[in-house]
This record gives sequence, structure tokens and C-alpha cells, in this order.
Amino acid sequence: MSLFGHKSMTVPLFILAFSLQCCLSLSLYDHPLDPLTPSELNRITLIVDKSNIGSLPNLTYHVVDLEEPDKNDVLSWLSSDKQEKNAVSRRAKVVVRAGGETRELVVDLVAGSIISNHVYTGHGYPPFTFIEFVMVISCVPLTVGWYGETVTRRALRLTCYYRGGSVNVYARPIEGISIFVDVDSMRITNYVDRFRVPLPKAEGTDFRSRTNTDHVTCNNNNRKGKGFKIEGNNVKWENWKFHVGFNARAGTVISTASILDPNTKKYRRVLYRGHVSETFVPYMDPESEWYFRTFMDIGEFGFGRSASTLQPSIDCPADAEYMDGYVAGADGQAMKMQRVICIFQRSSGDIGWRHAEINNPGTVIRSGQPERSLVVRMVATVGNYDYVLDWEFKQCGTIKIGVDLTGILLLKGSPYTNKQQVTADVYGTLVADNTVAVNHDHFLTYYLDLDVDGNGNSFVRAKQKTERVTGFNASPRKSYWRVVKETAKTEADARFRLGLEPADLLIVNPNKETKLGNQVGYRLIPGEPLTSLLADDDYPQIRAAYTKYQVWVTAYNKSERWAGGFYMPIEAVEMMA
Amino acid sequence: MSLFGHKSMTVPLFILAFSLQCCLSLSLYDHPLDPLTPSELNRITLIVDKSNIGSLPNLTYHVVDLEEPDKNDVLSWLSSDKQEKNAVSRRAKVVVRAGGETRELVVDLVAGSIISNHVYTGHGYPPFTFIEFVMVISCVPLTVGWYGETVTRRALRLTCYYRGGSVNVYARPIEGISIFVDVDSMRITNYVDRFRVPLPKAEGTDFRSRTNTDHVTCNNNNRKGKGFKIEGNNVKWENWKFHVGFNARAGTVISTASILDPNTKKYRRVLYRGHVSETFVPYMDPESEWYFRTFMDIGEFGFGRSASTLQPSIDCPADAEYMDGYVAGADGQAMKMQRVICIFQRSSGDIGWRHAEINNPGTVIRSGQPERSLVVRMVATVGNYDYVLDWEFKQCGTIKIGVDLTGILLLKGSPYTNKQQVTADVYGTLVADNTVAVNHDHFLTYYLDLDVDGNGNSFVRAKQKTERVTGFNASPRKSYWRVVKETAKTEADARFRLGLEPADLLIVNPNKETKLGNQVGYRLIPGEPLTSLLADDDYPQIRAAYTKYQVWVTAYNKSERWAGGFYMPIEAVEMMA
Repeated sequence: MSLFGHKSMTVPLFILAFSLQCCLSLSLYDHPLDPLTPSELNRITLIVDKSNIGSLPNLTYHVVDLEEPDKNDVLSWLSSDKQEKNAVSRRAKVVVRAGGETRELVVDLVAGSIISNHVYTGHGYPPFTFIEFVMVISCVPLTVGWYGETVTRRALRLTCYYRGGSVNVYARPIEGISIFVDVDSMRITNYVDRFRVPLPKAEGTDFRSRTNTDHVTCNNNNRKGKGFKIEGNNVKWENWKFHVGFNARAGTVISTASILDPNTKKYRRVLYRGHVSETFVPYMDPESEWYFRTFMDIGEFGFGRSASTLQPSIDCPADAEYMDGYVAGADGQAMKMQRVICIFQRSSGDIGWRHAEINNPGTVIRSGQPERSLVVRMVATVGNYDYVLDWEFKQCGTIKIGVDLTGILLLKGSPYTNKQQVTADVYGTLVADNTVAVNHDHFLTYYLDLDVDGNGNSFVRAKQKTERVTGFNASPRKSYWRVVKETAKTEADARFRLGLEPADLLIVNPNKETKLGNQVGYRLIPGEPLTSLLADDDYPQIRAAYTKYQVWVTAYNKSERWAGGFYMPIEAVEMMA
Repeated sequence: MSLFGHKSMTVPLFILAFSLQCCLSLSLYDHPLDPLTPSELNRITLIVDKSNIGSLPNLTYHVVDLEEPDKNDVLSWLSSDKQEKNAVSRRAKVVVRAGGETRELVVDLVAGSIISNHVYTGHGYPPFTFIEFVMVISCVPLTVGWYGETVTRRALRLTCYYRGGSVNVYARPIEGISIFVDVDSMRITNYVDRFRVPLPKAEGTDFRSRTNTDHVTCNNNNRKGKGFKIEGNNVKWENWKFHVGFNARAGTVISTASILDPNTKKYRRVLYRGHVSETFVPYMDPESEWYFRTFMDIGEFGFGRSASTLQPSIDCPADAEYMDGYVAGADGQAMKMQRVICIFQRSSGDIGWRHAEINNPGTVIRSGQPERSLVVRMVATVGNYDYVLDWEFKQCGTIKIGVDLTGILLLKGSPYTNKQQVTADVYGTLVADNTVAVNHDHFLTYYLDLDVDGNGNSFVRAKQKTERVTGFNASPRKSYWRVVKETAKTEADARFRLGLEPADLLIVNPNKETKLGNQVGYRLIPGEPLTSLLADDDYPQIRAAYTKYQVWVTAYNKSERWAGGFYMPIEAVEMMA
């Protein structure tokens, strides 16, 4: 009975219940990357609470997530027959704060025990809990970045808004006031009121729709059903199958996405894992009340925990299906988050492909197919902003990752009611009477582990280089471009600023060849490339140093998933009034 | 009776019929920018044929398009009441080839006469006619660019494909053969067969769909009707109204687009005129059979004349409405082009806007609206490629111009069946046995005449410049960016390579201010910026010199609508075998 090693036999039925549950969960799960279930989350809390950690003061749970099994174990589990499936480890990574310390645990759900436990003494902190945010509320708590301090504290800084007259809580900022909170001790450590400016008007700030909601569907009217199947966390649609997970930090996690090869009738691997990795939203106002607003919402709080309950027919078409999510609260208990992911088939009216051919004598051929795709959507509402995060799978094999930004501007109070009154820099745009929308950037970074036709993928830049024409006497052409491919050899070699030179970005499998001898691969197609404009020696930029390059390629390491680091450096400099 | 000045009175009823028609057409047209009607096109031919030009040898019509009335006349016509509308001139610009010369005419439809007539002696030629393309067919005629010649001829060059075994006429190129055709004399001037390579296989090249077509709609299921109104060429949808024209060169032309101001209940001007201006598709193979493939399809042939008849439920959703187009054939007679434009409302499943607010005590507010837009689509099928050209109007005021590229690759025969056999540069990718897809670019350039809230608009670059923080003792922030606006003063000042420095591109009305004192304007949001990589001294690049910059801003001049020029320099260098 080593399985229950350190448990007392005075509660055998209880343990038995867990034992059953553990075995059931092991045999029932559809995919080793399934997110932790509510009963698993609660079981983890029980295991930790019953251990000596449970008796430490002020125990709060900051991270409770699946400790991922080894990629090879996952892949062999997926590729073996039902009967032969070996149990894959089912473990949780848990980060708690207790007795003023950050503690990292690994909990084995099969053994029912903590198999790793150590105090984290490095730089930075785990994400804040929701309760921590709510407890310090009355004004809105904002994270504060890091500005070179060696000794840091877990601090938040409040910015205040007048609540009267509008449901838009960001419409009426009270400028000049700063409140500093030490989150561990939950105390206000400083309060500064530097100046006053007029309160923006409430009029016209209500963001709600005045029209009735229409029931919208974008699905194919002539097809029966929704066009896709969800079993557990596995989704099948047309030529795609993939796994949809959810955790507190990233929100939606797409795993083991494969596409059917129409020739072999076998699925081919494309993406082992993909999720949003970090955000960086630095505001461009150096004044004391604003300079620190340089948010890294994923590491500081979590997009999963910010996931918004999706509204049918507004956030997703009427025929979408929904998934709930579960995260651990600050007490470690499972919290249900309703309808945080929606999945729907889309026929947008775009053309998948088409061609009209008039050059076949006696006949005009017109052929084509409308585009159809499958969308997996979540919305992370981080305070004033709502990030709409889409994974779109297309029949042609494309995976499109889309981010839309909506919500409400973060506003700054201002003495001005007309631009002509403005003499000094207001660091933004006067958008209403006494209201400035401060300049800022949004950087979203994704973690993508592509395994095209297998694990051993390479990153290639296919550069387009202009050549002079030589040796073609009969050709008056003077130039053309040719493709020069460069495979990244080291991680330092494989970080890129896009747009400096023309190049296609390819992820290829150098161990596989097509019948024609070409490499198998995917192309990474970026949008307009953006780079952080902050000075390299500025603190927010040091914290978000990764934003100086748009693409970083690293060898697979399952712990390297968070662009800004797993722990976030956080500190507030406090001023005297 | 000056109206019929040079007409013979022996056909009075005939003339009277025209006279009626002219008056009817004048009083009936909905918009002074309405495209020429079939009866107007035929009337123009009659006017020209009856004049002394009609007796010149080999008369062919290359351009028959509305000669645009003055912008101020158009705007005052649109803003005046029905009763007070003054007649706006109704004239046609006509370019004919006759007696080996290019001749530019202006035909006044009200007067029924040619009011301007001169021989064009400048560089370049008008677009080829469809008949010219078809007559030289058997192989596929390609335009040939300009390579520095001072004396040029209107030449096409044929490239040949084996027709057997596949409806995909581009699948099986016969390499090595070049046929040169002088189009004016319609003679083959040279034939060269340099070498032989194996014919690519027909197998697997059929591009047609094997599945049944689904009837797809993306419209709102709960709404009655299509959500928009078409009267003549005027379209009204939600808060937008605009005019949809069509001509042989550009295809779809959007004019006088205005958006309703919800406060004043009046329409505000946004776009006076917009259409695709030129394409440039240079292939990157310097060999004799390929170097000249540097197509400028709009000036060389015309996107309107290449417009594809749209297939309901494939090219456009099932509930789309269609418009026909009319162009003048080589004989000047009106040719109907069926269903070349479709218009449909789209609900793509995207979110128009949304916000969830948890910070109002005791209540969670969730609000938002699904995105709905109106799409005006045409497809230009220029040989192997199909360009899907969308104008998308959104409720929020955005106009999105989209181009999708589909169809079939232009293929080159090759001795190789596997990449390992390739030792020299093949200037492309082996995509099938004995088949190389040659590297190339597609540049599409749009003409946009924005008149935001009036004619006098300025072009502003709002640059983001990094600043060091100084004078803020209490702020540890070291840097931020601020906005530095630069208004273009001259045309030379106003051509831009995007991506070199961070900047927003704004079209503002400096004569109008919001209540807050801000300028009224639109922002031009580009995608990934691309530049031609050809050498500046290379001939195709000299011809398409505009592709070295992505944005050119010029003062309004109604004749400057074609990025590559109205006339295209065309010449073929002929080789000896």
C-alpha cells in the first residue's frame, strides 16, 4: 500500500474514495494534457493542507497547474492502442505563499503525496491571486513593474476612479492620488495626493449597447449539426484534430494538433503545444502616477484567471459550443469559470480557393470552394481591456492565431477641455473633457512548440537576396532575387527582428522529405512587426527584454514557456507627498 | 440644332432616338459617376464610327470610359435637391488604335460629338483588347515589359502549354519555345526553340472541387432582408452610403462614400474615389524564356475586363446581390459582363466590441455587439491567377481593403523529378515532377482619394520617438515614446517606405476640429510592408518604379489615377535561335 504511504488509516473510506477517484481519473482521461479537474484541484489542496505546509501561517495558492508529463510519454500514450496505454504520470505544479515565503511543490496525484518541496529564493514573485486584487480594491490595483531594486516586495499601487454616474469605471479617473499596498501584509504603506484636476464627465461614457442583440450564426445553413465533435477536451473537425486545455495563467492551451493526410489517411503532427506566453503593456507617461504602468498581465495575474464568461450571440455565434474552466482559488479550492472557451465553425464569406479558366476551348470552367474554418476563442478581460484570443484552424492546413483588442481605454484626468489649452506634453490624446487617453503599446507573445511530422524540427530563414544577372547574353534583365536559406544553429543565432530584410520564416522537419525531395514544413507569417521603443536600460524594458525581438527560437525545454519568466519581478518605489 | 451639328438630317428619327435617350439618361442617372451604360457605349461607337476617324484603317477601341466630371460639379450635384440639380457633363474618354496610331478622343454624349481628338505620340501603349489576346492564342500570350528600347512596338510573347490530360492549362508547360507576335500587324515575327525538358504529368493537376458545393450564408439569421439597399449604383447599409462603379481598367470603383454622424444625423464625407490602380508581378527567372514576365495587368489588359462571373455560394454567400458590368469591345460595342460584382452583408463571428466589468459592486456587466460589415467583391482572373478584391465597410467607420490571391501557379518545365538532381539554380521550387514554380512577387497598388469631412485633407505621419526621462525626480522611468506629427508639404516629401521607423499614417482635415480641438481624420493601417527587390536600373523596375515606396501622396489631379501610368511601355527583345 505504498500508494497511501503517509496517510493515516483512521480515514480509510475517505482515502479509498480518493483512491478510486485517482484510478478512475487515470483510466478516464482522454489525453495526458487534460487540465486538472475540479476534484483533482480539491484533492491537491487536501494533500497540501494535510502536509506540514498546511500549518504554516497565511497559506495562499498562487499556481496550481498540471505538471506536464514528458513529451515522449505523451506521444507514446497517444499513439498506442487503448488497451496498451501505460499510465502517464499525473502531477501538479503548485506554488504557494506561506509564512512570507514562496514555495514550489510538485504533487503526485497517483501517489497522493508531495514529491518535491522547496522554498523559492530567486528574483520575482508568482502571480497575484484574485482575492489579493479584490481585497485591495476600492480603487483599482495595478502592478508596478521593477526598477532596478535588489530587495523587492510584492506591492500593488492603487489608482482611483470616481464611481458615480457611469458603469464605465475607467471613465472618471481621480488623478494625483497614489496608494501603495504591501500585498503580503495587506497594508497601505503610503498615500500621496500630489495635485487635483477636474473629474471627467460621466455623460456619454456608458459603453453598453443600445440596440437589441441579434442572434448571429456564421455556420453553414445546409449542414446538419455543428460540423465538429468534442469528446472530453479533444476536438475533431474536418481534417484537424487537437486538444483544448485551460489553465489559470495562459487560458486556452492547444496541444497535439494534427492534420489528416488525404493520401495515407493518417494524421500528421503539426503543433505539440501553443498558448499565449506573456503580455507587455507599457504606458508612455513618465509622471509619478503613471510611469509604473507597464503591465505584464499573464505573469502578474493570468489570462486564464481573467477569462470572461462568453456571451452567446455576442462573443460567439449562436451555434457555438462552450467549455468551462477550473482554476484554484487562493485557498487552493477549485473554482469553476463558466463558458470561458467557445468553439464554432465559421463560414465567413471568404473564398477558400477558386479559379475560372477560359483557355479550354469550347468551355469555361469555374470551380472553387468557400472557406470554412474552426475557431477556438477565449476572451481575457484584464481590467479595462478585453483581449479576444482566437485559434483558427483552416481546411488548407493553416492555423491562424488572432488577437483583437476591445474594452475601455485607461484614462487619465487632465485640466484641459480643449487641445488649444494644452501647452506641455500630456503623453496622450485628449479624448473627452478633462480626459486623456495615455499613449501605450500592447505586446502579445505566443509560445509555439511546432513538431511538424515529428519532434526534430529546424528553424529556417529563407532570405530573398537581389542578384545581378550575369552570363545571360540573350536576357536584358539586370536583376532578380533568389532564395538563400539559413538554418538557425544556436539560440543566440535564432532571435529575429522582423522587417529588416525580406525573408520567409520556416519551421521544417529536416529528417523528412517529400517525394520530390523538398523539406516538410510550415511557414510563420507575421503581421506588421512591432518592437518596443523603450530604452534598453529602462527597467520595464529589462523586465520585458524579449520584446526587442519578435521571434525567439529555443531548443525544447518544457519549463521554458513564459517569455517574461515564470516569476515576475514586482516592486513599487514609494514617494513622499 | 447645334446639338446635332455635324449629323446628316437624312436619319432624323435615328437622331431623335438618340436625343431622347441622351435626355432620359441625363435625367435618370443617380450619380454623375455612374459607369457608362450599354446604350451610351454603343452611342459612343456610333459617334466615332460616323466621324472621319471611322474611315481610318484597322480601327479598334482600347479604352472607353467615363471622362470624369469635375469633382466640384459632382459634389454640388450630390448636395443639391432633386429639382435644382444642374446637368453635369456626360463625356467619355476614348482611346482607339487606327492607321497604326494611338488616338485620344473625348466624346460629349449630350452634344453627340467628338470634342477633342489628338494622336498620342508619347511613350507606351493603351491596354490590349481581349480579341488581340484571343487571336494570338494557341499558346498563352504574355506581355513583355520594357527594357530600355527607344523605338518600341506593341508585342506579345507566347508561352506554350500541352493541353492534353488536364483542364489545368498551366500544369504542363512546354519549355524552350518562344513565339514573338507583333500585335498591330498580328504576325509572328520570330520563333525560337532553345531546348527540351520533360512534360510535367497531368495526374493530380485538376483543380476542381470533388465535393458538392454547400450553400453558405453568413448573414444574420434573424433579420429580414439582406440588410442593404441598392438603387442604381448607390448602396446604403447601416451608417454607410456609397456608389459602386465598374470600368474596364480598374473593375470596381467606389465613389463618394459617406458615413452617418449619429449626433447631427447628417452624412460625413470619407472617400471620394477608390479603386485598384496597378499590379506588378515580376518573375525572378533571368533566363531568356522567363525574364520578361513582369506583368502589369491593369495597364496592360485591365482588371475590369478580366472580371470573373461570380459563382453564387462559392465566390459569394448565397444571399449576395450581384451587379453586371459593361465594357466596350474592340469594335467599341457594349459587352455585358455578368455578375462581376457581388455585395453581401457579413457576420463573420468576430466581435465588434465587448466589455465585461466586474468592478461595479454587486453586479457584473457584460455588453457588446457582434461585428457586422458589408462586402463589395469582385474577382479578376488574369490568366492563371484569381485576385479576390474586397471592399469591406464596417459599422465602426473602418473601410478595409482586402486582396486574396488564388488560382493556379505559373509553372516552368524542368528536367528534374527530385530536388537532389538539381545542381544549378532553378529560380523556384520543384512542386511536381518536371515542374518548377518560379519565384515571383505580386504588388497591388490602390488609388485612394480621401476627402474626410471635405476636400482639403493633409497627410500626416505621427512618428513615435523615444525620449529620455528628465526632470522627474520621483520617477525611476528612463524612457518613453511621444508622438511627433509631420505634415507632408510636397509630393517629394510624401512618398514613404514603411517599416523603417514607427509611425501612424493619418489623413486629416486640418480645417475641421472636434469639440475638443482635435483634427478629424482617418488612419491608414498597412499590413506587412513589402518593397520590390529588383535593382533600380533594371527595366521592369524602371517601369514599375512606384513599387520602391509603398505610399505616394499627391495633390488631387483627376488624371493621376494609374500608378504605372495610363500608357504602358511594351516591347519584346527577340532572339535568334
